[in-house]
Amino acid sequence: MDIKAYVLGKATEAREGARSLARASSQQKNAALLSMAEALRKRAKELIRENAKDIRFAREKGLSRAMIDRLTLTDKRIGEMAQGLVEVAALPDPVGEVLRMWQRPNGMTVGRMRVPIGVIGIIYESRPNVTADATSLCLKAGNAVILRGGSEAVHSNKAIVKILREVAQRQGIHKGAITFIDLVDRTAVMEMLRLEGIIDLIIPRGGEGLIRTVTEHSRIPVLKHYKGICHVFVDRDADLKMAEDICFNAKVQRPGTCNSMETMLVDKTIARRFLPDMIKRFRSAGVLIKGCPETKKIVPAVDAAKEQDFYNEYLDLVLNVKVVRDIDAAMDHIARYSSAHSDTIVTNDYAKGMRFLREVDSSAVLINASTRLNDGFQFGLGAEIGISTDKIHARGPMGLEELTCTKFIVLGSGQLRE
Amino acid sequence: MDIKAYVLGKATEAREGARSLARASSQQKNAALLSMAEALRKRAKELIRENAKDIRFAREKGLSRAMIDRLTLTDKRIGEMAQGLVEVAALPDPVGEVLRMWQRPNGMTVGRMRVPIGVIGIIYESRPNVTADATSLCLKAGNAVILRGGSEAVHSNKAIVKILREVAQRQGIHKGAITFIDLVDRTAVMEMLRLEGIIDLIIPRGGEGLIRTVTEHSRIPVLKHYKGICHVFVDRDADLKMAEDICFNAKVQRPGTCNSMETMLVDKTIARRFLPDMIKRFRSAGVLIKGCPETKKIVPAVDAAKEQDFYNEYLDLVLNVKVVRDIDAAMDHIARYSSAHSDTIVTNDYAKGMRFLREVDSSAVLINASTRLNDGFQFGLGAEIGISTDKIHARGPMGLEELTCTKFIVLGSGQLRE
Repeated sequence: MDIKAYVLGKATEAREGARSLARASSQQKNAALLSMAEALRKRAKELIRENAKDIRFAREKGLSRAMIDRLTLTDKRIGEMAQGLVEVAALPDPVGEVLRMWQRPNGMTVGRMRVPIGVIGIIYESRPNVTADATSLCLKAGNAVILRGGSEAVHSNKAIVKILREVAQRQGIHKGAITFIDLVDRTAVMEMLRLEGIIDLIIPRGGEGLIRTVTEHSRIPVLKHYKGICHVFVDRDADLKMAEDICFNAKVQRPGTCNSMETMLVDKTIARRFLPDMIKRFRSAGVLIKGCPETKKIVPAVDAAKEQDFYNEYLDLVLNVKVVRDIDAAMDHIARYSSAHSDTIVTNDYAKGMRFLREVDSSAVLINASTRLNDGFQFGLGAEIGISTDKIHARGPMGLEELTCTKFIVLGSGQLRE
Repeated sequence: MDIKAYVLGKATEAREGARSLARASSQQKNAALLSMAEALRKRAKELIRENAKDIRFAREKGLSRAMIDRLTLTDKRIGEMAQGLVEVAALPDPVGEVLRMWQRPNGMTVGRMRVPIGVIGIIYESRPNVTADATSLCLKAGNAVILRGGSEAVHSNKAIVKILREVAQRQGIHKGAITFIDLVDRTAVMEMLRLEGIIDLIIPRGGEGLIRTVTEHSRIPVLKHYKGICHVFVDRDADLKMAEDICFNAKVQRPGTCNSMETMLVDKTIARRFLPDMIKRFRSAGVLIKGCPETKKIVPAVDAAKEQDFYNEYLDLVLNVKVVRDIDAAMDHIARYSSAHSDTIVTNDYAKGMRFLREVDSSAVLINASTRLNDGFQFGLGAEIGISTDKIHARGPMGLEELTCTKFIVLGSGQLRE
């Protein structure tokens, strides 16, 4: 089989789908999304049957329990997937919005109009729900999607795509709007990444390895949801009760997520007052503490943190604790070790709060709030396709707006260039 | 010499410069820009002396007259370069602007703050003025710049950078803020393009070959100023006098620029009335016309256009003319052949104007105005670093705002994730 020709064929179909979808009305897109949700719920048995093939194969291959869990579709999970589509349908359509218009001295009116990006390639790993989630967001923003899921979930993904496509076409959406690469061969991904001019944007969803491979080989712009090495700095002027609650929430509420805290920085002035109770509370929740030498002086029973630990995204109940001289030392630490994802200061000092807000360069910088709040829903943007740690195009939670671009529009009356 | 280590050293210096520059006040940046302008004017002799070396070498190498002209610095050109810096100093500083803030049900306030991107690599060809232009825009937006100019202009570029750096440092700007790679070896460019995580963005300025090479090899996001295959569609409901003026301006006012018209599309209903006079006017201005068969029927003396011609960016007094059935045929032609740069419709029909505005997917879509107006100054954005034909991050004229990104800021009072 000619993989190159196969992928090019799929991408060309997506290109045609994109041109058609760009003109679809909000009503048409929303009707399609709601019908898709209904169809997923109705045909849950069919999905679970196909999913069983992936699970059997995963067991034969000896995949971990966690991996198999991520792969598994249940009635409940299918219901959540469908509910996701309903929620995306309810979001305002970003396409066609005119951001601002202004008049030039020569009388022409200039503005920016939000338009779809075009064809978005999604390269993802085991979770089959990404198929529906990513498709719904891309479609609502008027983009065609070209999906390439992990080989472990190929039967589940194919079954989901089949349903989504059938429904979409019945609602008058071009079949190229939802395109699926069902080759498990890795060459297919490499071929996708070469199609600049046909695919407009690549969004990888998965582990660090996948993201590195994609970034290294892509000639197409890539929007990355990368790792989160997030910090909370407890300043000497913090309300220590608030600081304790924020730090506990940032670490423990859901440790496996990218916006949970990996390192707690504590001003030395209040370290003796703050650390013993805080660490006790962490330990009672099963958190393993790795402390700097100062921390060990105050709470000797903690493990010793190594330099390398501060670069680690644990995604687990493990926490680095470091005592720092002052806010400058805290910001220096963050500049060095942070993945520029989510960083919080807890303080009641106005000037230090403002300095932290201005000088820390992360996708979200927070005063007196948990890092766990860096999230599309929490910020009020609606569903998100990831949290970008890039600085180009999108930074922080990527919602529908981040799946669009703008074009300039000019309303003239015969203006010429002098 | 270890090129890899050299480039990495330069980029690391730029990284430090970026962190320092991000905190510089507008006053400090403006003072530096004004002093730079003064120094360029004062030290024009020194620049012209160094420039003479490049010109001598270019003559020995037998470069074309046009190339040597682009390379040449005169008092007048140095004055214009300095004036450019003065104008950038006068523009509003985009850094620190808070775009919007809103309150969430849990009481936290969320907003977006404009911040510098970080380190921007500029890879450019022969014109030495790019050194000062690009540096001033990057600096004003709080970014460190790492410059890699063409080998033909190396003495001129070094002399300009020397002056800019000296002045900047005297004004308290970190020396890493303006970094210059003075290796003519091409490997240096390849090494730059690998430094993802240190350099945040690459902007190539030059011909198609340079842009292709950069895009193909870069692991860093690239913002491209690519070719302009621009169209004017003269609808059957156009004011034909206005259409004639717009088409003439779009082609003739400065044919060597990316936003000049390469193909004129004419509705068949008015082709017999419009084309004879229009073509006569073009020819009297020295424009070579390549017409479709319909055009040749109306004005037999024109050359015959080949399919390939419609993909051509002439940058010269050459124009394709095609008679089309209606607006749909015009938009199909544009979807196929346009480089999505600047496309105009001339019409007095409201519905067709609105359809064109919505459905044509180019960096600027205009009604009743010359394509030549797609420009940062003309749109009122101030100086530009190019016109992006990309869809990611920036589209159309790229001014200071396009050299920034945003971060989310959160003002909390103890909010946690539930």
